[in-house]
Amino acid sequence: MESLQVQSYSNSYTVYVGANVRHRLASLCNNNYQTILIITDTTIENLYLEDVKHSFSADQNVHTAVIPAGESSKSHDVYFRLLTKAIDCGLDRKSLIVALGGGVVGDLAGFVAATYMRGIDYIQVPTTILAHDSSVGGKVAINHPKGKNLIGSFYPPAAVVYDVETLHSLSKQEIRSGYAEIVKHALIDNASFFQDVVQHRSIYSISNEVLIDHLLRGIKVKASIVQEDEKESNIRMFLNFGHTLGHALESELGYGKISHGEAVAIGMLFAIKVSEDLLSISLPYNELYDWLKENEYPLRLSYINPTDLLEKMKLDKKAHNQKIQMVLLEKIGCPKAVQVDHSWLLKKLTKFLEEMTVE
Amino acid sequence: MESLQVQSYSNSYTVYVGANVRHRLASLCNNNYQTILIITDTTIENLYLEDVKHSFSADQNVHTAVIPAGESSKSHDVYFRLLTKAIDCGLDRKSLIVALGGGVVGDLAGFVAATYMRGIDYIQVPTTILAHDSSVGGKVAINHPKGKNLIGSFYPPAAVVYDVETLHSLSKQEIRSGYAEIVKHALIDNASFFQDVVQHRSIYSISNEVLIDHLLRGIKVKASIVQEDEKESNIRMFLNFGHTLGHALESELGYGKISHGEAVAIGMLFAIKVSEDLLSISLPYNELYDWLKENEYPLRLSYINPTDLLEKMKLDKKAHNQKIQMVLLEKIGCPKAVQVDHSWLLKKLTKFLEEMTVE
Repeated sequence: MESLQVQSYSNSYTVYVGANVRHRLASLCNNNYQTILIITDTTIENLYLEDVKHSFSADQNVHTAVIPAGESSKSHDVYFRLLTKAIDCGLDRKSLIVALGGGVVGDLAGFVAATYMRGIDYIQVPTTILAHDSSVGGKVAINHPKGKNLIGSFYPPAAVVYDVETLHSLSKQEIRSGYAEIVKHALIDNASFFQDVVQHRSIYSISNEVLIDHLLRGIKVKASIVQEDEKESNIRMFLNFGHTLGHALESELGYGKISHGEAVAIGMLFAIKVSEDLLSISLPYNELYDWLKENEYPLRLSYINPTDLLEKMKLDKKAHNQKIQMVLLEKIGCPKAVQVDHSWLLKKLTKFLEEMTVE
Repeated sequence: MESLQVQSYSNSYTVYVGANVRHRLASLCNNNYQTILIITDTTIENLYLEDVKHSFSADQNVHTAVIPAGESSKSHDVYFRLLTKAIDCGLDRKSLIVALGGGVVGDLAGFVAATYMRGIDYIQVPTTILAHDSSVGGKVAINHPKGKNLIGSFYPPAAVVYDVETLHSLSKQEIRSGYAEIVKHALIDNASFFQDVVQHRSIYSISNEVLIDHLLRGIKVKASIVQEDEKESNIRMFLNFGHTLGHALESELGYGKISHGEAVAIGMLFAIKVSEDLLSISLPYNELYDWLKENEYPLRLSYINPTDLLEKMKLDKKAHNQKIQMVLLEKIGCPKAVQVDHSWLLKKLTKFLEEMTVE
């Protein structure tokens, strides 16, 4: 088992990464919690809930709450029902919530923990590769019908316990989605990390050992940025590399049509093109493109109106007074936020979409 | 105008206290906020909303949301509607929420600010004496049908702007309720503060000057304790002096039947009796009793079953494993948390209630 320490504004917590660590969850807690509520979803319930439950001892009161799998559970309604459940289970200020699942469970259970009795401890137990990103950094939230993650807090976990064994039950699409964020962390951090990832031609047959290494390095990138800028006033926006177009694509195509990471993969390709043109440099566009293609990322898009897409990009949280700001790369490992002229961007985007639809 | 600085875990903020400072609210902001949402209730709307609105300049977008006056607005439903309102008004991460009102508005609007886009700035503009307590210290919350303040955060304001002119519109009951917390701050802090308060025989004819002095000293006591123990792990519980019985009384009689401060006043009398007996000391019980009586505090209770009341006291947040813990006084200015034997306490409580019903 590997571990690393993350410093947040309010506490320091450990991220454990290893095979089968879910069985040791209770022993990795700093406190001997009397009452525990494990929140998970209908998919993970059948796979790992019992293992996590049994890691606690008989004299601890362990309760469980199972939410429907999927983004729609990050709702106000499910949030409120979980708070009621916490009360009914007798959770007090010294109790623990365990978030067992992917990003949806982590965000939702984390927000319940953040606001139950003004905040109690919670532990992230991510079961997707994508959640290596969301489980670290303390961002927790639910959705509002008018927008994603509009209701939330910055509330760091008491620990993150990452069992790579649970990642073998992921679908190919989920593996792709998660690996896109690992590639993103590599691209904004350093060239050798990027090379180490893309030298593995298939992400579907990666060993636990390599997976642990990639996850840990990804988490390190995230953690070091978040430690410096927890509340997202400046450099935390670098983590948004590939997300300006990525989020717009997700929203324009309809959530669920394309996974988050798949959309970010396309967003990264576009951000690299923009970087090359705007900063007059050369980046490994083809290398990334080929690797994505080999790994079956959906790189062929159905027709999308570029003007509509640009409008969505203006809604990006990095935008200032409706001016689009993109994270670009001066070189691998050197991200930079740049305000981009809209008419120039529209031309660029139109051409990019043409290439992606023809292919 | 007087001011004092409060240090919280995340920021340092200023508490301004003075006459007519509501007209200067905008100039007391550290930032030039582009978009502002003032949240107030139906009572305060007609009294001070226009003044606060007009303190902002014409190029700032000032929106208002008015909630029904009263505790029932601290609901999940009103909370969600305010978040929707914030979205509809176009509030972003750099926007400001102004909480104009008493504790209900402060707690609710503060929780909206704490969780809107993971937290935006808010300013407390208290319009009750009682809110000198709740507006400082960063506790924000809403109620759950199963209990008060069960959903909330620790989220300090960007500033507190306290206009004592607004306190002249308070009812006698509201003045009593607020002054009980000032007396509490005096009792846990020092004897001369206590003497300074009780020498004023009528709290209904106190000058602005004296009121500013009392409020500032009360806030100082609160602030110095909160600075040392923001998350309520130890000494912050001293602020609960009088509250173990006070909260139980409120709950047993039904919220609204007796005001919070009136219940705390009775709770303080009881805590003094318990202190005298348990710690074999003498405290100014009669002095406090007479002062409360002169100021028309309701000291004559209708019959309450002592066993029922004791059960409610066990629900107190200071209780550990169902054992009641009370804040007692070794002398004025020396509070101490003491675990009290239940059967002894029941006898004491029975006798106290008899005295309070006979009187």
